[in-house]
Parts: sequence; structure tokens; C-alpha cells
Amino acid sequence: MINEKMAGLGKKRSVIREIFEYAKLRKAEIGAENVFDFSIGNPSVPTPKAVTVALERLIKEKDPVALHGYTSAQGDLGVRQSIAKHIESKFDFKADPNLIYMTCGAAASLTICLNAIVNAGDEVIVLAPFFPEYRVFAEKAGAKLIEVLCREGDFQIDFTALEKAINAKTKGIIVNSPNNPTGAVFSEETVIKLATLLNKKQAEYGTYIYIIADEPYRELVYDMSVPYIPKYYNNTLVCYSYSKSLSLPGERIGYIFVSPNANNSGEVYAAVCGAGRSLGFVCAPSLLQYTVGECADVLPDLTVYRKNRDLFLDALTEYGYTVVPPDGAFYLFVKSPEEDAYAFCDRAKKYEILLVPSDDFGCKGYVRICYCVETDQIKRALPKFKALMEEYK
Amino acid sequence: MINEKMAGLGKKRSVIREIFEYAKLRKAEIGAENVFDFSIGNPSVPTPKAVTVALERLIKEKDPVALHGYTSAQGDLGVRQSIAKHIESKFDFKADPNLIYMTCGAAASLTICLNAIVNAGDEVIVLAPFFPEYRVFAEKAGAKLIEVLCREGDFQIDFTALEKAINAKTKGIIVNSPNNPTGAVFSEETVIKLATLLNKKQAEYGTYIYIIADEPYRELVYDMSVPYIPKYYNNTLVCYSYSKSLSLPGERIGYIFVSPNANNSGEVYAAVCGAGRSLGFVCAPSLLQYTVGECADVLPDLTVYRKNRDLFLDALTEYGYTVVPPDGAFYLFVKSPEEDAYAFCDRAKKYEILLVPSDDFGCKGYVRICYCVETDQIKRALPKFKALMEEYK
Repeated sequence: MINEKMAGLGKKRSVIREIFEYAKLRKAEIGAENVFDFSIGNPSVPTPKAVTVALERLIKEKDPVALHGYTSAQGDLGVRQSIAKHIESKFDFKADPNLIYMTCGAAASLTICLNAIVNAGDEVIVLAPFFPEYRVFAEKAGAKLIEVLCREGDFQIDFTALEKAINAKTKGIIVNSPNNPTGAVFSEETVIKLATLLNKKQAEYGTYIYIIADEPYRELVYDMSVPYIPKYYNNTLVCYSYSKSLSLPGERIGYIFVSPNANNSGEVYAAVCGAGRSLGFVCAPSLLQYTVGECADVLPDLTVYRKNRDLFLDALTEYGYTVVPPDGAFYLFVKSPEEDAYAFCDRAKKYEILLVPSDDFGCKGYVRICYCVETDQIKRALPKFKALMEEYK
Repeated sequence: MINEKMAGLGKKRSVIREIFEYAKLRKAEIGAENVFDFSIGNPSVPTPKAVTVALERLIKEKDPVALHGYTSAQGDLGVRQSIAKHIESKFDFKADPNLIYMTCGAAASLTICLNAIVNAGDEVIVLAPFFPEYRVFAEKAGAKLIEVLCREGDFQIDFTALEKAINAKTKGIIVNSPNNPTGAVFSEETVIKLATLLNKKQAEYGTYIYIIADEPYRELVYDMSVPYIPKYYNNTLVCYSYSKSLSLPGERIGYIFVSPNANNSGEVYAAVCGAGRSLGFVCAPSLLQYTVGECADVLPDLTVYRKNRDLFLDALTEYGYTVVPPDGAFYLFVKSPEEDAYAFCDRAKKYEILLVPSDDFGCKGYVRICYCVETDQIKRALPKFKALMEEYK
């Protein structure tokens, strides 16, 4: 009598959330220090000092009625101006505050964008492996999700497969670089090829195909830069979140930026506003809006993540694991030593190691390891990873 | 090519948001002190000291990784326990933390509940006058909105009209008491009659009909108590928000509580979780979750609102306006001196008085006056209201 589909989604949690809940129970049972939880992308590095300082100053100095009051539906203008300025200076790309929409986090950005562009029956492409909630969000928005597997090895786009997947119904493609779960970053060459292909297909079908650039990991890269997609392709909606860069995942704060070069960008932005409104998202949480407005230029300290990555990568490689070269985010994508990644994750559980099998990311035979944890946890887990691998020898 | 319905909703803002934006522009033009803005329910009373103290202490003392980290999808268990305890002690009603779902504000609570219960083609009843966004939320969830006008005079439910509106497709009814925009509170007699009618209709059609109790104004009442609907009717989902009670409208924090007595309450709660997930709402903003968890028993100071209400009510009545007896919330619902409430609002604008016409609330011929403003603004506006009425004499 209720909506069974929703009840189903509520009962069958995402595999990541399932492990998250299992981890909480297990830690309560045997002590947190005895569970080696590498399952969830909850940053282990505390929010930068500048964020805490901004929070404290805002609470102390700003009139509470204004601080905690409604902002404009699309977000406070001053905050949007600050973010536009940041985009301009960082990417040398013209950003209009009136094409920025403040959101309650990355999930909100995605559902709003999808509901803004999708008409029932449209298709949305995802590049596998992909964050599994993309399917839930896209299907709820009325789209059919089309999976296109990336190239094995470097996890760049397989353009032959992608071209085959595009048709007149293709409304959008979600691009997530740096990628969850692989840590791969799409090279400039990949982005240029993608733009060329999409422009060709738009012309061929007389349609618009939007890139939804889901970029929560943009700042988490090592020794390289991540191409800014709006510079290469006009019909782009950038979904940004401060969850990972400012270690604020629980605060749900981010934004959507509609490229000023998108066809009818004003109309696209209006659809974003309309979707935000009808999904119940107007006015992102105000205290956090003002905080990120003040901290738009603050960068994360990557020291720990880099150290963790190198430690993990070197050791796992030494033990005989095959690891995808990790350019960004805080994930290692590791080939399962047996075909069935679920079976491998179950075996890891015997060592109290919690990993996420890749199957739900639309790609079989791998596991995702989040290294956004205390370095000590990795050190203590390494002998267990070694013993685990020995079982396969 | 994008979703035209969403673009339409984005371009045609809600009438309240339109006036909100007009007020901002007008204040910039002629000075805030010269605009008598009674259009938006943004509490003028600052958040209670206890809230600021809790915010400051949490930021200072709680580990930032935990404070700003992901909570469970449905909200932190400790916070939900604290709210359950509050419900039990305040209403003497058994509340299960595992039937509470923390949300990013009242709009989120409503869209989640609607998406949880509605299947395409279902009908949802609203009691007019009603908050206009109910229509946007319900239609986006796939429901047909059915308006049932309340009794003129006291704005209690017109049960003859309501009974006629209920049929086998009726999935829910949104009950908003204290009411926006009238300030009316449904009496215990009204709630008992409503429960009786709905139980009769459920039996007649072999269906479940859910009350969605939208209760952001619950604490804002004078000299009376507001019946707690789950005590009277089993299939109830309570949507609570701290926006008005704790003066935190911009922070978007609230909860859904599924009555443990609802049929298959676990299934209904799962649908709430699934809807929250697919709309992009898992894990309400964490800092504010912890804050309201600590402040679950904090009550608003109603001194100013009571003073404002009495001042306004007495003066307007004296000038010849007809005002609905206001029991709660911070709205006065005033009969327009001319048939067309829009024309009256336009006339008021000449005096720089900003009011909201009732038409968009599904009821013609009234205006809504928000008295959650500085008392001084009311005092300075009164001569203008007087002059405005003189125009009709």
C-alpha cells in the first residue's frame, strides 16, 4: 500500500552502508581497535583549522537571526560570489554566481541535476566502476541507467564502448574523476576525446547531452592536476561537495555550477532551481553555507593520505596483490585474488578486515580499500593482508 | 530538452519566495527600515542561548572527525534516542528511536514522507488554506493533490467536505496544526472526529490512509495545547522541524517519526529510509543533528511573539480589519477589505507593506501577515495599516 520500491530501497541498504552498520556493531562487540574498517570514505583527517575558526567566529559574531535564517533558495549571494571567484581564480574559467546553486551535499547535487535534466524514459550513462547510488538517484529521477565499463588496467574511458552506448535518448553522462572506487583520474586526453565524441553525437542526434561532473574528490590528487571539464565541454553541470576536501562529509554542503557556456544555461539553471524546490532542498544549511563561503580557497592537507597510500600500495604490491595505479581520491582498487570478490571480502572478514566488493560498483572481481584512516590502523592491518594473501598461494 | 516542468517551477518561484526576493531588492533601494516586510516566516527571535552554547561546545569539545563525519543514514542513534525520550516525556507516547529519521528540515520531511507512501495516481488531501509548496511536493511524488476547504470563521475541518473527498485512492492527508497561514489550531474534538472518519474510510475501502502531521509550529501556541495526533490516530507520520521552535530555519534540521502503532510501521519506516536515500537525503547535517539532540527539550521564548500578536490583533481589529482568531504559529490571517487579495496586497505595497495574498494557499480573499518581526516594525507600520483601511471607507 505504501511505495514498495521505496520500502525495498530502505530495507536493502547500499552495500557500503551495510558494511558501515556492521562495522559499528562489530566495533562495539570486540573493540574499535580490533576492527580494520576500510569500508567507508569518511575522511580521517580533521577539518582544516580555518574551517573550525570560521565556524566559531560566525557563531560568535554574526547576528544569530541572520546566521540561522533562510537564505535565498539557491543559496546566499555572498557565498555564491565567493565560490564563483574561487572557480575563476583556480581554473581561469568565468563563473556566474547566478549559475551556482548551493546544495545539501553531493547526493543532493546529483539528484537535483538528474531531476532537472531527465524526462521519463531518458537514458543516463555511467562509467563503471561507479558509485552505486548513481543508479538509485537516476532511476528515481525517471532515467534508465546505462553502464559503460572503463578500460581494465588504467580505468580510462573505453570510447568504443561509450560510442555504442550513446543514442538519441542519451540525456547525460555522469563523470566522476578522481574516481570512486578506483582512484583513477581522467587525463586531459580522455576529457578532450570525451568532449569531441559528445559534441559529435549532439550534432548527429540534434540533442543536448549533459556531463554531470561529480567532483567531491577534485582536491584529493597527488602530483597531477584534474582537467576542469567546463573548459572542454559546454553542456556541463559541476557537482561539488566539501565532504572530502574539507573533511565535512556529515555536514552535507556543496554546490551545483551550471556552465555559462551550456546551451540555454539560464533555462538549465531554472530547472536546477525547480528540481531543488520540488525535492525539498531550497536553502542549503545556512551556517555551513557561510562557512564554506569563507573557506572557498582552503585546501586539504594531503600529507596523511599520501603517506597512507604509499604505505598501503607498496606493501600490498609486495604481498602479491594487483593494485590499480591510484592518482587521486583515497581509495585503492585491488584485484580480488579469487574471481568472486564477495568470497574474498568474506575471507577478509575472518581477519576483521572490512572491504567493499566491486560488484555493486558495476565491475566484478575487485575490492575497494579506503585509506582515509589512521596510519596506525593500516600498519596493524598489513600483516593480516599478508596472511590473507598467503591463503591463495 | 531538459525537464520543462522543473524549469517552470524554477522560473515561477513560490509567491512567498517572490516577495522575499522583492523585499531584499526594495530594502537595498530605500533602506531596510522603510520596508514593512510581513511576508516570510523567518523567526525574529534569536535561537535560544542553549542552542548557541551547544553549538560552541560541540565545536570546541567533540572530535571534529566524529562531529563532521557521516552519521547513520537515518541519523545518529544518540540523537534519535534523545528525541524519542523527549516525545515520551512530553506527550506520554511511546517513541522508538528506530522509527525516527533525521531530516534536513520540514520540506525534506514532507517530500520523504510523500515519496514513501505515494504510488503514481494516488491522491493526497490538503486542508485549505495550506502551505503552497505542498502541491509542488505532492505532485513531484506522483500524487494528485485534492484540496478541501476548511470552515470559514474558525478554520476547523469541514467534515462534510472532507468525507466527500476521500475515496479508495486517498493515500494521505496533510495536517498542519498550528496552521500556516491561518494560525488556527485543530481542537481535540476536531482531531478525534478526523481519526474517526479516517478509520471508518480505511475500513470501508480496505486501505490505509496516512496522516502526515506537519508540525513546525507545534511549540508556538498561546494558552492552549496542541493535540498530539499519534495518540488519536495510528497511521500517522509526524514531520517535525526545529526551524520555528528553535529559530533555525536556515539550518534545515528536523525529523520524521513513524508512529509505532501504524500498520506495518517497520515497512513504513523502511519506505521513509528508501525515499530519503533515493531523493539524496541520507544523513542530515551532523553538527545540527548533535545540537538538536542536546536541545531536544529546549522551548522557545514566546514573549515577543505574544506581544506582537496582541499588539497587531488589537490594532487591526480597531481599524476595522477582520482577523481569524490566532491560536498559534506567528501568522495573522486577515480578510482582504476588497474581494481580490492581490489587489489589496498591491495597494499595501504603496505603503511599503509586504503581505502574502491567500490565493496561493488555496483560499481566496485573505492575506497572511507574519508577525515574527521586530515589535518596532509593527508599531511603525500600524499607522500605515490604518491609512490603508481608510482607503476602503
